[in-house]
Amino acid sequence: MGGVTTLQQDLVRLDDIRDAAARVSGLVVRTPLLPCPWADDLWLKPESLQPIGAFKLRGATNALHRLDLERRSAGVITHSSGNHGQALAYAGRALGIPVTVVMPDVSTPLKIEATRGYGAEVILVPQSQREIVAGQLVAERGLTLIPPYDHPDIIAGQGTVGLEIFEDLSSVDVVLVPVGGGGLSSGVATAVKSLAPRVAVIGVEPAVAADAAESLAAGVVRTLPEARMLSTVADGLRTPLSELTLAHLSAYLDAIITVTEEEILDAVKTLARKARLIAEPSGAVTTAAVLHHRDALPAGRTVAVVSGGNLDPKLAATLFA
Amino acid sequence: MGGVTTLQQDLVRLDDIRDAAARVSGLVVRTPLLPCPWADDLWLKPESLQPIGAFKLRGATNALHRLDLERRSAGVITHSSGNHGQALAYAGRALGIPVTVVMPDVSTPLKIEATRGYGAEVILVPQSQREIVAGQLVAERGLTLIPPYDHPDIIAGQGTVGLEIFEDLSSVDVVLVPVGGGGLSSGVATAVKSLAPRVAVIGVEPAVAADAAESLAAGVVRTLPEARMLSTVADGLRTPLSELTLAHLSAYLDAIITVTEEEILDAVKTLARKARLIAEPSGAVTTAAVLHHRDALPAGRTVAVVSGGNLDPKLAATLFA
Repeated sequence: MGGVTTLQQDLVRLDDIRDAAARVSGLVVRTPLLPCPWADDLWLKPESLQPIGAFKLRGATNALHRLDLERRSAGVITHSSGNHGQALAYAGRALGIPVTVVMPDVSTPLKIEATRGYGAEVILVPQSQREIVAGQLVAERGLTLIPPYDHPDIIAGQGTVGLEIFEDLSSVDVVLVPVGGGGLSSGVATAVKSLAPRVAVIGVEPAVAADAAESLAAGVVRTLPEARMLSTVADGLRTPLSELTLAHLSAYLDAIITVTEEEILDAVKTLARKARLIAEPSGAVTTAAVLHHRDALPAGRTVAVVSGGNLDPKLAATLFA
Repeated sequence: MGGVTTLQQDLVRLDDIRDAAARVSGLVVRTPLLPCPWADDLWLKPESLQPIGAFKLRGATNALHRLDLERRSAGVITHSSGNHGQALAYAGRALGIPVTVVMPDVSTPLKIEATRGYGAEVILVPQSQREIVAGQLVAERGLTLIPPYDHPDIIAGQGTVGLEIFEDLSSVDVVLVPVGGGGLSSGVATAVKSLAPRVAVIGVEPAVAADAAESLAAGVVRTLPEARMLSTVADGLRTPLSELTLAHLSAYLDAIITVTEEEILDAVKTLARKARLIAEPSGAVTTAAVLHHRDALPAGRTVAVVSGGNLDPKLAATLFA
């Protein structure tokens, strides 16, 4: 994907991802590849089976592991209220590092309880104040901010998904990965293309919120109006790329495929019925691409990363009714 | 559990299970242990993630692998219409062995299609004629009958679940395993107790169909009235033990815990909501034991085998309702 004009940056390298794999070993689940008798040449990489229900645990664990003793004892903070906040809380508890999560005061009680349940201090503030409050706490308490995707340690941690795919199926031809902020897709693309340039690594995002496709085409980070981003059911993919993730995707991603909202929900159902996995919409976009856009994909042995399983219970009730 | 008066038999040994593990490697999914933040010291062994949705693939693959070339080319047959029939069909296709499954003509179209979909020849007969027709086909066509659990090769194959548990968590204290016909529980108990006699291996079955508990207490295979067996939602656990599986369980199982129908359904829901796994009731009995009978279990690091995920779609609709 030519035409990229972003500032040249130091990209994460395969060795960084290998180092991350050694660090997270034993702290994250080594997920298997699941063959799918219901689709030709398809394997699933079910990151929904991580204890917090998403791949985010890999990056958070790697980033915390990289901190020196002083920063560890001071503690860390994030203003991401979704899977990254829970991942950081869980990883912090495992490593004995205090974690603070600044969440909007409109968060669901379920999310707040889950984050507290993993041992984090949760601070509720108005939506617009999240970053400001987090910044204040960084200054006042000497906390280290751990961003959800815009950091080399996070990208390297998520990249371990790509290493494992190749370890388990070195004859893989196509890897499909969801694209939100770009942490997972950057890491996976870097790992897979570094190991085997012949493998096609293809990002998948919702058609109604295809900011990554636009950004890659333009060569600069493009954001879409909030109303459009909010219109996708795939709430984990409403985030724009960063300069850093755009640089990785520009270097390593072969293409982006977009899927409709109907296709995403159909994939959530199919994963439950046929693969016996509870997936969240953001995690199901890759399966949606296989089910509904196989003609647009390269042929061959295909791995779809199912990035998470934190399905909203209300949505689940309608899907399985 | 003393008082066993069954004929002494040659029990499956740890080496048989190790040999089985080498045979099934690459043909079955190496399932991970999943830590559960929602329950203390609990890990799940999700056999629901096997491509046919149940552990049965392990035993079927091992049994087929053991056949000589002549028997392989003649083909195999079973009159089990559930997960074993599908497992045999799937394993037969992978190994190039023709598979015939004799099913009752009242089977659901879903089950018939699934079995045919894996490449097996399905023969529909009245329920009462299943064994007779299978026997005729063995005689006429020279097919080899592969029973669902009453065979050392099946028990050794299922026992690979126990090997893997110990490989991944050698500090395990308690292993919980569902007891139906006893193939899985015999194999797992043999593997785990041979590797580490200190580990408690505990079988779990529905209280309304607790024939294994009665059989172990009596020292002979006891069957319950069909109406009682049919009254459990855990349809995979309606089968009586055989002499062979009773002998293994008598030798290796520490205890049996029973769970109620309500507890089983609650565990199916919990697995969907908190572990993001679709489990069938038979696969959820071990989680039910943890959720509702922890006081009756030995303390410590506990692994619950989730044996299968072929959940009836009507029951699935109630999961998030």
